[in-house]
Amino acid sequence: MAVEAVESRTTASSSGSAFGSAFGPAVALSCRECGERSPLGPVFACASCFGPLEVAYELPTGDPEELRRRIEAGPASIWRYAPLLPVAADVAERPNLNPGLTKLVKADNLARELGVTGGLYVKDDSGNPTHSFKDRVVAVAVEAARTFGFTTLSCSSTGNLAGAVGAAAARAGLRSCVFIPHDLEAGKVVMAAVYGGDLVGIEGTYDDVNRFCSELIGDPLGEGWGFVNVNLRPYYAEGSKTLAYEICEQLGWRLPDQIVVPVASGSQLTKIDKGLRELVALGLVEDRPYKIFGAQAEGCAPVSAAFKAGHEVVRPVRPDTIAKSLAIGNPADGIYVLDIARRTGGGVEDVDDAAVVDAIRLLARTEGIFAETAGGVTVGVTRKLLASGALDPELTTVVLNTGDGLKTLDAVAAGPTATIRPTLDAFRAAGLQGR
Amino acid sequence: MAVEAVESRTTASSSGSAFGSAFGPAVALSCRECGERSPLGPVFACASCFGPLEVAYELPTGDPEELRRRIEAGPASIWRYAPLLPVAADVAERPNLNPGLTKLVKADNLARELGVTGGLYVKDDSGNPTHSFKDRVVAVAVEAARTFGFTTLSCSSTGNLAGAVGAAAARAGLRSCVFIPHDLEAGKVVMAAVYGGDLVGIEGTYDDVNRFCSELIGDPLGEGWGFVNVNLRPYYAEGSKTLAYEICEQLGWRLPDQIVVPVASGSQLTKIDKGLRELVALGLVEDRPYKIFGAQAEGCAPVSAAFKAGHEVVRPVRPDTIAKSLAIGNPADGIYVLDIARRTGGGVEDVDDAAVVDAIRLLARTEGIFAETAGGVTVGVTRKLLASGALDPELTTVVLNTGDGLKTLDAVAAGPTATIRPTLDAFRAAGLQGR
Repeated sequence: MAVEAVESRTTASSSGSAFGSAFGPAVALSCRECGERSPLGPVFACASCFGPLEVAYELPTGDPEELRRRIEAGPASIWRYAPLLPVAADVAERPNLNPGLTKLVKADNLARELGVTGGLYVKDDSGNPTHSFKDRVVAVAVEAARTFGFTTLSCSSTGNLAGAVGAAAARAGLRSCVFIPHDLEAGKVVMAAVYGGDLVGIEGTYDDVNRFCSELIGDPLGEGWGFVNVNLRPYYAEGSKTLAYEICEQLGWRLPDQIVVPVASGSQLTKIDKGLRELVALGLVEDRPYKIFGAQAEGCAPVSAAFKAGHEVVRPVRPDTIAKSLAIGNPADGIYVLDIARRTGGGVEDVDDAAVVDAIRLLARTEGIFAETAGGVTVGVTRKLLASGALDPELTTVVLNTGDGLKTLDAVAAGPTATIRPTLDAFRAAGLQGR
Repeated sequence: MAVEAVESRTTASSSGSAFGSAFGPAVALSCRECGERSPLGPVFACASCFGPLEVAYELPTGDPEELRRRIEAGPASIWRYAPLLPVAADVAERPNLNPGLTKLVKADNLARELGVTGGLYVKDDSGNPTHSFKDRVVAVAVEAARTFGFTTLSCSSTGNLAGAVGAAAARAGLRSCVFIPHDLEAGKVVMAAVYGGDLVGIEGTYDDVNRFCSELIGDPLGEGWGFVNVNLRPYYAEGSKTLAYEICEQLGWRLPDQIVVPVASGSQLTKIDKGLRELVALGLVEDRPYKIFGAQAEGCAPVSAAFKAGHEVVRPVRPDTIAKSLAIGNPADGIYVLDIARRTGGGVEDVDDAAVVDAIRLLARTEGIFAETAGGVTVGVTRKLLASGALDPELTTVVLNTGDGLKTLDAVAAGPTATIRPTLDAFRAAGLQGR
């Protein structure tokens, strides 16, 4: 299972040297399709086969105990894992939002409701600075942007990413320019605009925004621009590995048996798997089987559909779900998600919007965690997989909540139990005192 | 300066014994007006003079170095300070939201804009589980509720407190019943209702809600109910001391020179002062002068007005400001705030709503922190106090942000820089590329 990670370690090249130690243990970009290596740089597609590039490392060798102690003595943020990320060793000293090390909540109340006896945990990324996991990936992208000399940080977004980029750029002293569909909800526009960067509304759909950004990257107009999820994507994506590292460290340097991850582009799931395999290869956790499950909303479930049909390709869909942050109809990493779900003995499942709302309320009622719709998807899928027997209730299970309910308030129609006049008689009549 | 704290330590009684070790180092309630002591219990007013009660302690004696090490080895939450709070030593083992240990952000960008050279820090409590400092105080109140055998957790609220109580009760396995004005904004209603407790809309103003709650406490209908900010108030209020503890620990066990705190009821400011004095009395920090400054919104500035006029009493006002979480027209602890501001050489100042919005945007633009209106008040007042010379720019200054901008989105009218068609020509015409 740890073959690739080990390979990263033993076939190290010095191709990263153009940037000195700025990328830490990262040594090259590697094509996920043909395996060809290219030097570290602001590129995202293989020059040979146009396959997606990812970061390859020369990971630290030596005593795992010593590395573990070094990590534990590090900052209370993702930067404690700097030795495993494409960043310089002194990354924490530069102004940044210091995301990560969010709570791993032992969800005993939820476990009782769902019948899980092996230990149920919620990794709650609403605790990040802008309240979603995007702070992790953007933080790593900002470091790459600095190294490449980019002065403007950019992205296309319909929500969480816009806020994460705006905030990170402000703190880092970079200019930002974020592109959104012009008809975004007012609340999301405020969140994207408040950090003072440029915010550009594009007359068109989110697809139009993306197409426009791709054009801009290829044009002199976009010179000096780092698009976190395009030309900085290989670095950006690595930030998701920190979810795997934190979960294992917080479990006492132990792999979870089962983990339920939301699937939008699929990148997060693939990087969590990469992170887990690295920890095994480094000897930081015992090499034991784990299963990874992907979670989608029924209204945008192309990977789930492919998994169930036994397909090896993912057929694009037109999204129609309240889980907007997962609404990617043509997920770039969909086929890798299928590979991982099958290789680990996990799966991919989906739930409808009503189940998403139910699950948001279930998590709030049992654990006091108010999740974004994406968190409703993972909790809802967990419930469904337990019912079907795909998830074993006697094993240690981790469920991801990647965002905050405050950002998707409209999805939850919660209201007062009663409305009364301010008198004891009226209260008595409402019948709430004895409950 | 440390007289009261020392007195707490040396006049210890055993009046807390009715509850065993449930209240840890707390030994009695003490009247803030006449000083009379009464046993720990769910009471909030002195039986002799009706003055407000607060918790008195027998704080740990012995080697400060050892206590410091014990705290540093403790949980990453307010419970690391359990030896200084009215809670049992094993408090962290019971299900709770584990608030606290939020980031103390070194705000160098903001410092440059404001001309602060002595070190400027933002204590960012938007990182708490429900994104406001209320999680701290509610967590301590929950422990008291458990000890007193209360089965329902309650409060009156127009915002942050409702969510904090709902979430904390859910996680703790207590029932909750929260009272709100019936015409609250839909978003706030969702936040109060989503945790599954009872939510009661009261036909009337916030004052009517409060009056009703006071009636309910005195009636058999309210038996077994713990109102966090009424009959549990002495315990609840102590939670704010943790802000002082964390700031000093995060500064390397050092007192800040100047600290700017929002003033609603005034309780938070008085407890921060109490916490700082305790650290001095315990030898955990060096005994040096510090100045505390209170911050209010001009539309609800009764304490600021009294400070400026040299009054010793606070004349109530009718609030009219966008800083709703500070809109208490008749602040219970106002006179104590005046005492502390004068004793420490600090002050109380206010800013108008336009300055609040400016300050929210300034903090977002410089540090990537999106503050609630209350955070706009403290940053705005900091700027004003620097301009007037009341704050010394060469001293270490800490500014509190007690809540999250996501909860007061309407206050900030931020929008796109431009709206364009999805073409490079349109983008070029917008003139954004060269900025």
